[in-house]
Amino acid sequence: MSLVVHKYGGSSVADAGKISGVARRIGKVKDTGRSIVAVASAMGDTTDELIDLAHTVSKEPDPRELDLLLSTGELVSCTLLTMALRNLGYDAITLSGFQAGIRTDDMYGRARIFSIEPDRVESELAEGKVVIVAGFQGITDDLDITTLGRGGSDTTAVALAAALGADRCDIYTDVDGIYTADPRIVPDARKLPEIDYEEMLELASYGAKMHPRSIELGAVNGVPIYVASSFTEVPGTLIHRVEKVRELENRVKATGIAYQSNVAKITVRSLPDRPGIAAALFEPLATRGINVDTIVQNTSAERTTDISFTVTRSDLSQAVDLVNAILPDLGGTEVVSDSTLASVHVVGSGMQNTPGYASRMFRILADGNINIDMITTSEIRISCIIREEQVSEAVRLLHDGFQLAEEG
Amino acid sequence: MSLVVHKYGGSSVADAGKISGVARRIGKVKDTGRSIVAVASAMGDTTDELIDLAHTVSKEPDPRELDLLLSTGELVSCTLLTMALRNLGYDAITLSGFQAGIRTDDMYGRARIFSIEPDRVESELAEGKVVIVAGFQGITDDLDITTLGRGGSDTTAVALAAALGADRCDIYTDVDGIYTADPRIVPDARKLPEIDYEEMLELASYGAKMHPRSIELGAVNGVPIYVASSFTEVPGTLIHRVEKVRELENRVKATGIAYQSNVAKITVRSLPDRPGIAAALFEPLATRGINVDTIVQNTSAERTTDISFTVTRSDLSQAVDLVNAILPDLGGTEVVSDSTLASVHVVGSGMQNTPGYASRMFRILADGNINIDMITTSEIRISCIIREEQVSEAVRLLHDGFQLAEEG
Repeated sequence: MSLVVHKYGGSSVADAGKISGVARRIGKVKDTGRSIVAVASAMGDTTDELIDLAHTVSKEPDPRELDLLLSTGELVSCTLLTMALRNLGYDAITLSGFQAGIRTDDMYGRARIFSIEPDRVESELAEGKVVIVAGFQGITDDLDITTLGRGGSDTTAVALAAALGADRCDIYTDVDGIYTADPRIVPDARKLPEIDYEEMLELASYGAKMHPRSIELGAVNGVPIYVASSFTEVPGTLIHRVEKVRELENRVKATGIAYQSNVAKITVRSLPDRPGIAAALFEPLATRGINVDTIVQNTSAERTTDISFTVTRSDLSQAVDLVNAILPDLGGTEVVSDSTLASVHVVGSGMQNTPGYASRMFRILADGNINIDMITTSEIRISCIIREEQVSEAVRLLHDGFQLAEEG
Repeated sequence: MSLVVHKYGGSSVADAGKISGVARRIGKVKDTGRSIVAVASAMGDTTDELIDLAHTVSKEPDPRELDLLLSTGELVSCTLLTMALRNLGYDAITLSGFQAGIRTDDMYGRARIFSIEPDRVESELAEGKVVIVAGFQGITDDLDITTLGRGGSDTTAVALAAALGADRCDIYTDVDGIYTADPRIVPDARKLPEIDYEEMLELASYGAKMHPRSIELGAVNGVPIYVASSFTEVPGTLIHRVEKVRELENRVKATGIAYQSNVAKITVRSLPDRPGIAAALFEPLATRGINVDTIVQNTSAERTTDISFTVTRSDLSQAVDLVNAILPDLGGTEVVSDSTLASVHVVGSGMQNTPGYASRMFRILADGNINIDMITTSEIRISCIIREEQVSEAVRLLHDGFQLAEEG
């Protein structure tokens, strides 16, 4: 029998009225004879409110306790969703993370799913029930409750879809699909009917409202992911394996423009140019959980090197302190930082094999008087670090310049 | 090593400040070198708020889902309490009902504990941790979450104390002990330093702020229960096995006066006086979960009988409808009801063997111009149903008449 997994984000279940609306949507799917599993996030801002509550009693809440506390948010939204479904006459049941067999490691606050034991979910589905699963949570081998961290509920949904062999995983959220650029910045941005996992991964990493983690899981397990609005019926975007026709004419065509604001850059000057210097610099940052994004290293004629890297702005002061503390050991002369940057990214399959992309991007930015601070590239993405106040203009110019408003 | 179990009610953990206060109390016990397990209820009115929320999405919330929803309340208060303890420097851990091994039947909303598997609690205690257990909840053999219903957190605490072989179970609440009568009605009511389980059971059944269920569990397992205020340090009341010295002079001495308002009475008139009539009347009520308290039956000369019984006022209209529906089958003539009654109770060990008690109670009420509607007795209690507007006066007169303000 055909099985689909749905996921509804916090804004989709923010109050009793919205929960009843989601129940009606799920009911309609059930009416077509398909089996359905739905994963829900906590209502609205519940998770943040619980974190605030924890900080009223403790300066540094214990991670295990915090996870047990946060896991209640999804239990509340999911039991209410099940009650709303039953109120409409559908047989439904809520399963918490542990009841749904979602087994994780014990990295509290950012646990990774290592397996799903879907027996209970399958037996409830076999009885004809709609199964509502609490997202964002799992259980360790020691029966301790964990949460999965950012993008956790999407990850629960895609992992369940993979474990159950579902036809598709639908992510219903407050955006109605994946666009060629942020429609708030680019009014003629075009919704993509479909996109390849790899391209979506790049867009998700730089601005799109999905966490790359669930996209990666979908790609590895071949689960098609459909992103659409939970409030409307307009068609969304299908993320799946897109077989691109090799275009003989080698036309330069990108898929979308992404951006990130609140980028901060740190530059360590005049480091000795010897093996191991980058490891010595970045290991302490990784240990503290500070995510480093773009890294650029330039070696000068004097056998010293400058290393620049970007972090999110909220990590900047901690990162600067850390680097200053190890600066004597590193042998560098100076640490400077800039917190007023942003990044802009052109994403498209096979860009690296097509010489035109990068130069075209740089030309478009230059014509717009936008200075480029750093450049990095991947196989399907070219990224530039620029001044934050120019980021909206850069996105608009790139969207225009790559003709993304036109059908592909 | 000496082990105590504490229980803190919802009003004791109503906000972050109170939770920190409870953490300090628990810490003081830990400082004396004792092991401690603490059970907490949900914060303030959380449980009622969650029930209200359920009713916003469903006319009749499914009991299993409601229990999973309600179980979150204790997880929130307990994780916050643990965080507050850790903030004070004490090693502590929260265990949910299922993590604490609290196994119940599957009567959702009023599950009964059938066993406790204390392995996890014991191993955490062995590591020197304060163990905070979510009260009011357990898990079935199918791994579904249940709640224990009224008095559930007290029951969790006493059951844990029994399973762990604790020295004592302390119930900290918003009253500072058990009194000879309600101090709001009788200003010179005296706090009892100790009371026998059986007497406490009768007081708890009729007005004292503890549920009889946990007292019964304490009596069966010989767990001393200490009731005291969570906000002050004044001594409370110890509920345990009290060996009474046989008094040769047979002095009439009661232990306390209890009362209940919101009593309603239903009378079924002119029932045929034949075997099985009482069963035919009360079985349908029991099936609907309507609790019948006092029952009085009088057979008249005409071989018909009147049966009167009391229910709580909130059950009255449902009970009257039910009895009217079966009245033709029963063969009675009429159902009448009165919703303006109350009950008053004199409780004391060995009262039934002491003729003076009952007559003295009736004399005191008669002297106060208080009419008695129904009378029932148990081995250690005499109860009268009276008009509700006279109940405070009756409690005062009986407290005076039995000289309860004087030391026993």
